[in-house]
Amino acid sequence: MIERKGSDVVIIGGVAAGPKAGAVLGRRLPGATVALFQRDEYISYGSCGLPYFASGEVGRFDALTKTSYDVVRTPEFFRDIKGVDVMTLAEVTAIDRAAGTVTVRDLRDGSVFTHGYATLVIATGARPKRPPFPVDRSPLIRYFTRPEDAIDFRRLAERGKIGSLVIVGGGPIGCELAEGATVWGFETTLVEREVQLLPGGFDPEMALHARRELERNGIRVLTGAAVRGISLRDGLPVTVTDIAGELASDYVILCLGVEPETSLAASCGLELGRYGGILVDEHMRTSDPSIYAGGDCVEVVSGITGERVFLPMGSLANRHGRVIGENIAGSIGENIAGSIGENIAGSIGGSIDGTPARMPGALGTALVKVCDMNMGCVGLTERAARAAGYDVQCLWSGFGDKPEYYPEARGMVLKMIYDGATNRLLGLQAAGDGDILRRVDVFSAMLGRGCAVDDLLDLEHGYAPPYSEAMDPLHHLASLAAAKRRGLSLLPPCTASAGYGDFLDQDAMVWLDVREDSQFAEKRIPQYDTGRVLHIPIGQLRARIGELDRDAEYVIMCGRGSRSYQAWCILHSAGFTRVHVAGAGNAGAGL
Amino acid sequence: MIERKGSDVVIIGGVAAGPKAGAVLGRRLPGATVALFQRDEYISYGSCGLPYFASGEVGRFDALTKTSYDVVRTPEFFRDIKGVDVMTLAEVTAIDRAAGTVTVRDLRDGSVFTHGYATLVIATGARPKRPPFPVDRSPLIRYFTRPEDAIDFRRLAERGKIGSLVIVGGGPIGCELAEGATVWGFETTLVEREVQLLPGGFDPEMALHARRELERNGIRVLTGAAVRGISLRDGLPVTVTDIAGELASDYVILCLGVEPETSLAASCGLELGRYGGILVDEHMRTSDPSIYAGGDCVEVVSGITGERVFLPMGSLANRHGRVIGENIAGSIGENIAGSIGENIAGSIGGSIDGTPARMPGALGTALVKVCDMNMGCVGLTERAARAAGYDVQCLWSGFGDKPEYYPEARGMVLKMIYDGATNRLLGLQAAGDGDILRRVDVFSAMLGRGCAVDDLLDLEHGYAPPYSEAMDPLHHLASLAAAKRRGLSLLPPCTASAGYGDFLDQDAMVWLDVREDSQFAEKRIPQYDTGRVLHIPIGQLRARIGELDRDAEYVIMCGRGSRSYQAWCILHSAGFTRVHVAGAGNAGAGL
Repeated sequence: MIERKGSDVVIIGGVAAGPKAGAVLGRRLPGATVALFQRDEYISYGSCGLPYFASGEVGRFDALTKTSYDVVRTPEFFRDIKGVDVMTLAEVTAIDRAAGTVTVRDLRDGSVFTHGYATLVIATGARPKRPPFPVDRSPLIRYFTRPEDAIDFRRLAERGKIGSLVIVGGGPIGCELAEGATVWGFETTLVEREVQLLPGGFDPEMALHARRELERNGIRVLTGAAVRGISLRDGLPVTVTDIAGELASDYVILCLGVEPETSLAASCGLELGRYGGILVDEHMRTSDPSIYAGGDCVEVVSGITGERVFLPMGSLANRHGRVIGENIAGSIGENIAGSIGENIAGSIGGSIDGTPARMPGALGTALVKVCDMNMGCVGLTERAARAAGYDVQCLWSGFGDKPEYYPEARGMVLKMIYDGATNRLLGLQAAGDGDILRRVDVFSAMLGRGCAVDDLLDLEHGYAPPYSEAMDPLHHLASLAAAKRRGLSLLPPCTASAGYGDFLDQDAMVWLDVREDSQFAEKRIPQYDTGRVLHIPIGQLRARIGELDRDAEYVIMCGRGSRSYQAWCILHSAGFTRVHVAGAGNAGAGL
Repeated sequence: MIERKGSDVVIIGGVAAGPKAGAVLGRRLPGATVALFQRDEYISYGSCGLPYFASGEVGRFDALTKTSYDVVRTPEFFRDIKGVDVMTLAEVTAIDRAAGTVTVRDLRDGSVFTHGYATLVIATGARPKRPPFPVDRSPLIRYFTRPEDAIDFRRLAERGKIGSLVIVGGGPIGCELAEGATVWGFETTLVEREVQLLPGGFDPEMALHARRELERNGIRVLTGAAVRGISLRDGLPVTVTDIAGELASDYVILCLGVEPETSLAASCGLELGRYGGILVDEHMRTSDPSIYAGGDCVEVVSGITGERVFLPMGSLANRHGRVIGENIAGSIGENIAGSIGENIAGSIGGSIDGTPARMPGALGTALVKVCDMNMGCVGLTERAARAAGYDVQCLWSGFGDKPEYYPEARGMVLKMIYDGATNRLLGLQAAGDGDILRRVDVFSAMLGRGCAVDDLLDLEHGYAPPYSEAMDPLHHLASLAAAKRRGLSLLPPCTASAGYGDFLDQDAMVWLDVREDSQFAEKRIPQYDTGRVLHIPIGQLRARIGELDRDAEYVIMCGRGSRSYQAWCILHSAGFTRVHVAGAGNAGAGL
């Protein structure tokens, strides 16, 4: 085997964390040698953009590998601009920690060589989870994690070879691919084993918004549907499900999620966690002090519970890369200051203030576009918060993203989860065609700083009619939480739990709809069939309060929630004690 | 004079803070009586929406007074839904603190009466600043602060009576009206006394983006232009300026800013501050414990310097209203618990946890839409930060709001201001056609919590290609600040300071443009005329470093800034010591 001289730093993996660490090192430690080995042909591509290349919305694949100034990130780019020596189609097959070398196979010619390192970075990413059902081998049944997957799908789609599609798995990638299928106009079925789409980041009643949006766009969505197997019939895949029988299609994509790709790390004895990810400290160091790891191959610490979790996300991977680059620059900078010179150690290499870079706890902030429905989440779901033992309190409310009078005003529903014992924020979920992004990002900033519900009242958001309302939705959520402390009874949206059997006396229950006459006539929610319905517009409630029965159990509902809250205040102050408000977010009723 | 019985709470003013305080009281203290007097015909209208009614983008005026559920906010609305007794066209002419009464003139019939209060809320807003030059009286020369102003302008515009327009004052309202004039197609001149537009929230080089956008849309912009007077000639206004002579037009709007409307407060002896605003504590109490005040008639405390400032903004006014309502509910709830009953004091009236609501320090977070240019600011400008005595450090950088490959990617330039001594955040300015909103709001959240530059690295933003890049612009700004600590020399954008006479040796100065060949050929910035220019694409810089002169003073520039930073690293590590980076944001060069 050929033995190469080696580099100060060797990086394994060329998608997000690896190239980022390399770029930081190239800037911070220009005198150091940095080698990066990437198994695939492409490097530093926007892997989260693959669904948009598949859909045709991104025209050429190389757009995913371009910088913002229109230059393709090739090995030459990394050498000339970033100062990193990149080798593609180079698979690292072993790590010898004692010798300080990696074994590399050149996939072009099959040759094998070893390459020494002083510091190693493992950024091997994630691999698709294997299906728990039998699957026939066919190029028409594929995962969707690598560039080749997207390129293959796109080529067949362009040639008219795909008319019908089955997507197995309703997580973010599955939903994004379903949106892409609407662009092509495929007859598409999305199959998800859980009772909801997007089970990782959303609770069922919020995920319903994504489902309804896909259905409005012609996608057939099957939830709670287990796949028994995928076999070939006349050369085409047939997906067998438990609840919907056989689904014949031209193509099947398996989006069953990913797991950390840690075979290299495991075989050289690095410590792994319960999810199979590499264990790293907050400085992204593994159990071997000369090896760092980052990106989808590591486990991260939750910024809320402090538990280790597996959160494969491109945004975290890039931040890991930065932290790794900074910390290697800091430690190597000190060690090699003498040999390379004052210039590096003084002003570029070493960490000026001596504090190593660190990753804070991860919050799981994520966005998913599902056709015209913007979905966002951060922190714990209600389900996860209950499992973690918090005194879980939830709020739902609807909002405009701008004043209603402004021409482009759109809507959204927010669900906030917090701890009733401490009032600390736990999570937020958002869905709507409006601008949910600001609320998700601001909530994430507040959650990351350990804030409580009342801290949201201190937010000073930017306000102008083309952009926002005078009060931010997060202000309203904090006010609602305060109202809850004063006795407001807020139930989940009525679509979430038709009948509210768990909460109240079914026999005495009355739906009190306080919308305007025209709104009541136009949109009637199906859940009304489960109980008696009374319609009194909010403006008439004080005058018509005599029509109400003090012994009944009322669930008030409206559109976005503000009228219901107002109605609750009126009834409560009139001495009604069995009055509840249905949270906003009646996905499907279009309210 | 008729003496009315009086109310538990009397509110003076019906636009933002007043109605908000009333609505909170109606919910929190339904047993209390609340009266609101409003001088104008309209109440609780979106006053920040007036420019969009003027432009015709908002069709009917009553849209500005509607709730999100399409109901107009009339006095009946406030009575029936909010439990507040509103009287419009009712001008409060005096406050008698000793007697606990206000004197009210009914503008319908001229009758006058007194009305008692236990607690008073002053929310009289702001009034337009008087021009410091003579102005002839004419209905064609108007302020733009009240509904009547917008209605009058709109009526004349619709009747074709306005073909040309002069706007005096280039603050937010002036710029919004200029945008509106482009909708009508008026021949429009915007005149501003300062050397820049938007001088309150933006530094000159950032405000330049708004100017260029208005000019692209056909508006003539005159800055540094003092108006000497506005007189009538043949019945039409002629605006006389010092630098551009006479400007004849069909209509003139005066947008010279506002000052607190505090004549009532002053005449009853409440303490006022240096800007003429009512002094209030963090609970919005005036110097008289039974009088609260909020909205544009008060001075607020800066959340950065701790100094009192005057910040007339709708978002603050609404939050003031909430705090006032909560605190009155808390104190009255305790006092009247016995008389009105357990119901109110127990679960609605009193503050459950006994902590009065408070306003945090104000940050001045503001947004202005200028045609397709989104402008946002928060915190101190560079100028204000210098005046406050900080060790002012500034960064400029350009960003995409999404990955460049995503079809709807747009750009933005951010300027960050921080304190070099403590690294504490001081301010952010944003301009671009991209989504600046998230960055402004997140920065505001961090600034409000006293964060330092490095805290921005901890932000976990939501990432997906339709919405954002994998690294947030705020992450990059924090990294740039770290690079500055390690020696990076970052100058303002070249448009800001052609020649950089203050910073460097003019004779030895060379512009080093590191963009690609095609970009260099396509867009050449005018500032190159002030010095020598060298063009070496970033990818060739390492190889062609021999072409550079170590004795020269280089200012590197590119498009958004990342290549310049990379080039600086390359040159710096090669031992070049007189190398600077021009901050991104070359407004006008369209880079």
